[in-house]
Amino acid sequence: MINGVKTIGIIGGGQLGLMMLEFIRRLGLKVAVLDPDPNCPCAKRVDHYIDAKSFNDRVAFLRLAQASDVITYEFEHINVALLRILEQAGHKIYPSVDSLAIIQDKYTQNLAMEKFGIEVPKFVAIPNMEELNAYWCRYEKKPFMLKSRFGGYDGKGNFLVQHEQDLETAFKQLGGYAGEDRLMAEELVKFKRELSVVATRGLDGSCVFYPVAENTHKNSILDTTCIYDSKVDLFGNEWLGEGVWDQAVDLSRKVMECFDGVGSFCTEMFEADGRLLVNEVAPRVHNSGHPTLDACVTSQFENHIRAILGLTLGSTEMTTPFAAMKNIIGCENGKIIGFEGREKAVDLGAHVHIYDKAASKVGRKLGHFTICGKDAYGLLKKINIKAIVR
Amino acid sequence: MINGVKTIGIIGGGQLGLMMLEFIRRLGLKVAVLDPDPNCPCAKRVDHYIDAKSFNDRVAFLRLAQASDVITYEFEHINVALLRILEQAGHKIYPSVDSLAIIQDKYTQNLAMEKFGIEVPKFVAIPNMEELNAYWCRYEKKPFMLKSRFGGYDGKGNFLVQHEQDLETAFKQLGGYAGEDRLMAEELVKFKRELSVVATRGLDGSCVFYPVAENTHKNSILDTTCIYDSKVDLFGNEWLGEGVWDQAVDLSRKVMECFDGVGSFCTEMFEADGRLLVNEVAPRVHNSGHPTLDACVTSQFENHIRAILGLTLGSTEMTTPFAAMKNIIGCENGKIIGFEGREKAVDLGAHVHIYDKAASKVGRKLGHFTICGKDAYGLLKKINIKAIVR
Repeated sequence: MINGVKTIGIIGGGQLGLMMLEFIRRLGLKVAVLDPDPNCPCAKRVDHYIDAKSFNDRVAFLRLAQASDVITYEFEHINVALLRILEQAGHKIYPSVDSLAIIQDKYTQNLAMEKFGIEVPKFVAIPNMEELNAYWCRYEKKPFMLKSRFGGYDGKGNFLVQHEQDLETAFKQLGGYAGEDRLMAEELVKFKRELSVVATRGLDGSCVFYPVAENTHKNSILDTTCIYDSKVDLFGNEWLGEGVWDQAVDLSRKVMECFDGVGSFCTEMFEADGRLLVNEVAPRVHNSGHPTLDACVTSQFENHIRAILGLTLGSTEMTTPFAAMKNIIGCENGKIIGFEGREKAVDLGAHVHIYDKAASKVGRKLGHFTICGKDAYGLLKKINIKAIVR
Repeated sequence: MINGVKTIGIIGGGQLGLMMLEFIRRLGLKVAVLDPDPNCPCAKRVDHYIDAKSFNDRVAFLRLAQASDVITYEFEHINVALLRILEQAGHKIYPSVDSLAIIQDKYTQNLAMEKFGIEVPKFVAIPNMEELNAYWCRYEKKPFMLKSRFGGYDGKGNFLVQHEQDLETAFKQLGGYAGEDRLMAEELVKFKRELSVVATRGLDGSCVFYPVAENTHKNSILDTTCIYDSKVDLFGNEWLGEGVWDQAVDLSRKVMECFDGVGSFCTEMFEADGRLLVNEVAPRVHNSGHPTLDACVTSQFENHIRAILGLTLGSTEMTTPFAAMKNIIGCENGKIIGFEGREKAVDLGAHVHIYDKAASKVGRKLGHFTICGKDAYGLLKKINIKAIVR
């Protein structure tokens, strides 16, 4: 037992859960994972695999709670009502159900941040078509983002409205007719770059911050993330522009306090005209935190586990001056029979992380690789790892 | 497939195998493990667990070979005849069966090294009691080590003979009556300290060396291992004495060549009067290489896997100036129900590694922890992790 915990329960058995397993085992604790897919990466590597009918399977949630002394999750689109039942029965869940309920609705997430003094892009709830048309006219018929308030990821649930005829299509496609709480509109921010800060907050409110990460996307899916061990780049220049590093960390700190976060959270930000706006908060370990596995003293995964156990958080210092990570994304659908390009990646010094997924889908995250050291970014571009699919 | 390998087979499912698993999975490969104990740390974490009747179970060896594209092992006391059958059937085994056969017999191990110009303590085969008595007289009735040629570890299989009346006891206890090839006598080396070098050698003969490690033992079991990132200690002094670092690496290189090693090997040495003598060679990843998990760019485990796959070996550079490791050893027999002292260890910055063994035995390795940074050795002494047993 560590602070009363023998078994940690994780909702979701994908790669984020997988990357937590190793650190849980090292502490001598057990793991239970709930996932509807028996071929998910975690299923065959945990002490208890809870085979759920779906992520709405109440019985499975109860079984997970019975098997676990504390519950956490690796994605935020979880049925909050089910979690409340567990919480009311006395089960410990981190991050808290209250904070999850606010964050999983992008509209209430933004409202909460705005109230807390955190700058976000201008946004408004869109309960119906009338309101959508009114918004379009009010904002001078300029392009904007129509967003699902719930369940979006990797660009899914977002629709860039550019013309009047897009309105009805977007509204319908994003499920606007299903209820008045489904959609929101958000101004289109012309950003210079996207940054993110992963932070871990302990049960006692202590907080550690990972280096500010610069992210690039392809088809709305994270493609690369780079982190420096200081505000100064490899040429001695302050790579983020004066004060932006501190602003970013400060925003992340505010976000952790705003949501009373426990564990690792990611705050994604737009840098626009020297200002930083929070684009989105993930109440969990995050893809842009993957470089921390190979480039930091304590990874975001280990610190997440330490946080929910009430342990002292580990150093987020880098063990290398620079690290660059690239995702391995599925290009086609089918069974994965292997990967191309791993040999060369290893040859060039990459830390390769394949997630052991059974199937590839277009846009699905199948792995990533990280290169550390001054030449990381250049080397990254020489590597192309690709799933071989049948 | 990486160079024709989809699945790696490991003989032995203990902690050394466990620490390889993570790196095999990350490369996107599968693992098969053979171990007679279904509660061994690896059993529930691998793609194929081969439930052997014993480590002499021929059918199980064949099943492992069928499930694997390359076979390696995590301990050296394996039935070589069984391995030869697999090798003759065309299965790839690394390190090679030839080198294992020589190394697993301490007498032939020493003979091979002596022939190769590697200095070892003076030794002689002891086929029977007459020879033992003769040895005792020849060496002026001075204390010496009587050793089992096969199967010893953690001081097991060694008997320190100090008086004439020990001779018969030692001979009997170490199984001298079972056959003429069972025992050897070795001079007692008065050493200043014990050092070891873990090296990894690729299929192409390329070789990388980890920092020279200084080891201490308790009850003949490894207790602590310390590594520096340079020949100079934290006070700027050459900590090993002039030239000893280079001698140690040179000895390790000779050992790798002598046995035509493939994968990670450990060479244990005695430092005596500025000379280095090889005490023992382990043709596998080694306990004194555990600090490499948390303190080096590429661990001994990852490099072992890279080696047997024919991949480029990774950097053995340290990511911290100093690292100190301590073993967590069983103090009593019984079922493990938890551990004491983990919270404080994490608090002080230790990387804790518990091996998930079901039972504790006196002298059994249950875990280890490593501290990195200049204060590591002092901090190490403040930590005491202990299994709670029922």
